[in-house]
Amino acid sequence: MTDDNTPTQPTIKPRKEPAYLFSEKQVAEKSRIAHHFLDNRARLNENVDKADNFLIKRFYNLDHNTYLDGAVPAKYKELMGLVASACLRCDDCVDYHVIQSYRLGVTRAEQEDAINIALVVGGSIVIPHMRRAYELLAELYS
Amino acid sequence: MTDDNTPTQPTIKPRKEPAYLFSEKQVAEKSRIAHHFLDNRARLNENVDKADNFLIKRFYNLDHNTYLDGAVPAKYKELMGLVASACLRCDDCVDYHVIQSYRLGVTRAEQEDAINIALVVGGSIVIPHMRRAYELLAELYS
Amino acid sequence: MTDDNTPTQPTIKPRKEPAYLFSEKQVAEKSRIAHHFLDNRARLNENVDKADNFLIKRFYNLDHNTYLDGAVPAKYKELMGLVASACLRCDDCVDYHVIQSYRLGVTRAEQEDAINIALVVGGSIVIPHMRRAYELLAELYS
Amino acid sequence: MTDDNTPTQPTIKPRKEPAYLFSEKQVAEKSRIAHHFLDNRARLNENVDKADNFLIKRFYNLDHNTYLDGAVPAKYKELMGLVASACLRCDDCVDYHVIQSYRLGVTRAEQEDAINIALVVGGSIVIPHMRRAYELLAELYS
Amino acid sequence: MTDDNTPTQPTIKPRKEPAYLFSEKQVAEKSRIAHHFLDNRARLNENVDKADNFLIKRFYNLDHNTYLDGAVPAKYKELMGLVASACLRCDDCVDYHVIQSYRLGVTRAEQEDAINIALVVGGSIVIPHMRRAYELLAELYS
Amino acid sequence: MTDDNTPTQPTIKPRKEPAYLFSEKQVAEKSRIAHHFLDNRARLNENVDKADNFLIKRFYNLDHNTYLDGAVPAKYKELMGLVASACLRCDDCVDYHVIQSYRLGVTRAEQEDAINIALVVGGSIVIPHMRRAYELLAELYS
Repeated sequence: MTDDNTPTQPTIKPRKEPAYLFSEKQVAEKSRIAHHFLDNRARLNENVDKADNFLIKRFYNLDHNTYLDGAVPAKYKELMGLVASACLRCDDCVDYHVIQSYRLGVTRAEQEDAINIALVVGGSIVIPHMRRAYELLAELYS
Repeated sequence: MTDDNTPTQPTIKPRKEPAYLFSEKQVAEKSRIAHHFLDNRARLNENVDKADNFLIKRFYNLDHNTYLDGAVPAKYKELMGLVASACLRCDDCVDYHVIQSYRLGVTRAEQEDAINIALVVGGSIVIPHMRRAYELLAELYS
Repeated sequence: MTDDNTPTQPTIKPRKEPAYLFSEKQVAEKSRIAHHFLDNRARLNENVDKADNFLIKRFYNLDHNTYLDGAVPAKYKELMGLVASACLRCDDCVDYHVIQSYRLGVTRAEQEDAINIALVVGGSIVIPHMRRAYELLAELYS
Repeated sequence: MTDDNTPTQPTIKPRKEPAYLFSEKQVAEKSRIAHHFLDNRARLNENVDKADNFLIKRFYNLDHNTYLDGAVPAKYKELMGLVASACLRCDDCVDYHVIQSYRLGVTRAEQEDAINIALVVGGSIVIPHMRRAYELLAELYS
Repeated sequence: MTDDNTPTQPTIKPRKEPAYLFSEKQVAEKSRIAHHFLDNRARLNENVDKADNFLIKRFYNLDHNTYLDGAVPAKYKELMGLVASACLRCDDCVDYHVIQSYRLGVTRAEQEDAINIALVVGGSIVIPHMRRAYELLAELYS
Repeated sequence: MTDDNTPTQPTIKPRKEPAYLFSEKQVAEKSRIAHHFLDNRARLNENVDKADNFLIKRFYNLDHNTYLDGAVPAKYKELMGLVASACLRCDDCVDYHVIQSYRLGVTRAEQEDAINIALVVGGSIVIPHMRRAYELLAELYS
């Protein structure tokens, strides 16, 4: 959708990696669902990495930069990613952002608030995804 | 999508109205786009109100309660609404949440961070909506 | 998404045209919004017709057959088309099915019931489309 | 998407529960797919119920009220929910509304008519969901 | 969305079946994922066929005609189907078009190019589907 | 949706700019709709450029690279962008890709083939967008 003719790359401004309270490994030990999701993602990503597709790597890099600490703190960005994922009804994406939010110290009440916004914006079609998200929440915050 | 047989209504827990820095009127005076949106919405809502449809009123009430200050502050909830609206590509909804965020003191940099998340989650299909949102941002934050 | 190798065409089973209470012309005289929609559609369809695209004609024919009186009466089929259109947030499609329903004698209360289902299934993102649909309802049922 | 400042709750107008021909238990005995869906939904809903989230309960209540007998009979409302679910491509929602329609005495031909509308409105992307819905129909109407 | 009153059927213009390099059977022997998909589709389609629904047969026929060799060669049409399927996030549809493209001699690099377009248009929400598509690509092009 | 911890940027592999047969200016002189679209886009993009948002520039750059000549020729990539845009029902995106395709020498018959795929994948909800696309086609290919 763009017609930018300049192939030069804008220089990367310093952005701050957020401080995670928990590693992915710790999350996987706490929750069966998270464990299954993280394992499966790692296996599939390994295969994608092998393809070494330039544009996918660029997209992953852009995606990574989008969620760094900025004007909006990383934890709220992850919750925004959760809202978008639930609205667009992508279970894998919901799992990912619930886990990322948890790793950044987001409380269960905050996760529920975010899911409520997805529910009211996206409607009852979000309910099956909400139900599965709540199963993950129950495992993480037990 | 539910089969809840109990017609009884859960009691409303106290939720806090957020403190707006600007009224809708002040926003309309600042931005031509906001003015047009707010006027049009008021006119159309008046017509909806006349119909006095029970379920629409319930939905509006639920929607209103969802964005009140809670575990997540109202300003981040409005930004979450903005992300969802941009992802689902609804210009009216984008305008609404940009205005609400502005009224709650959200900075332009925070609005841009939220739109970036919508862009990366939703893809280039979000670009035309982002362009229109940036026009509104330019008017509000001038 | 199919791999049907037989180019033979299934014979058309007799399906019944529904009985319209009002012509498109009568609807256009009653409502300014309907008038604008019907005129615009006629003008654009004339241009599509000139292209004489085989697959578009087939799609139009299939679409036409789908809404004929069958196990489900045509009036409920139009309301189902309205629900789908509102959920998928297509203003032109909403206008079309509101008008078709009206032409088949659907009451305003029935139209509101259908829109309520779209609202609860599709969420607040449906609200702007609902507002515009209610403007058309007000003109048609005055 | 609303800015309704009144926290007062509209009083619930009497709406009629529809008369079900079959209980969920009877449906589960008839169909393996329905059994699996209903069991899974019950298990996940139990977990959601434990969270006792005010807004989810409100949404469930609103959702329940939307499908009650009204200007449009409950059976057509369930078929409208089916059309919306198939268009928005939510397998769980499709299963739910197929089952609800069956419980209300909807015939197989009526269910097929509704699915046809979803297919023509939503396109070939609906086909995989239609295929799975037909598997459920075959079990229910055998 | 159409109001075509003529039930007559446009005559089918000759369209050319594309020349497949591989049969579905050969693809199923090469890839476990393709095998699973093709088996499942065949089983479910058999059940749909039994219903002998006129409009579904018409839709399948239209769908089949759409992908025949025409102004755009069949191989690019299948890749277009792949882009649409990935954007609309339908795993079954993605599998189908990856397999069809492979059967028509599309290279892996061409498939990756198509998926990149889906990724940039559809955003990070496409990533989980892309990951699964890459698993199928790895099996087919090994 | 990714957790790539390396901030380093993959080096840009040489990709070839496609050879345009027509400039945007020439297209704008030929078609009133294209003129309006291109003018509006230029005006809105100027405003986005002023914001100098790092991630938007990165996204635009990625988007630009995606449509360059590669394993799939640029003209088919633009048609793939058209299919995705029509399926996701974004008029601005449809206009953009119809224009880009035209500038690369795509014939009207090829554009129609691409739109047919969008129509059959996306369903009747695509029709209003198809109608508007055909108006642009009529102006460009007159």
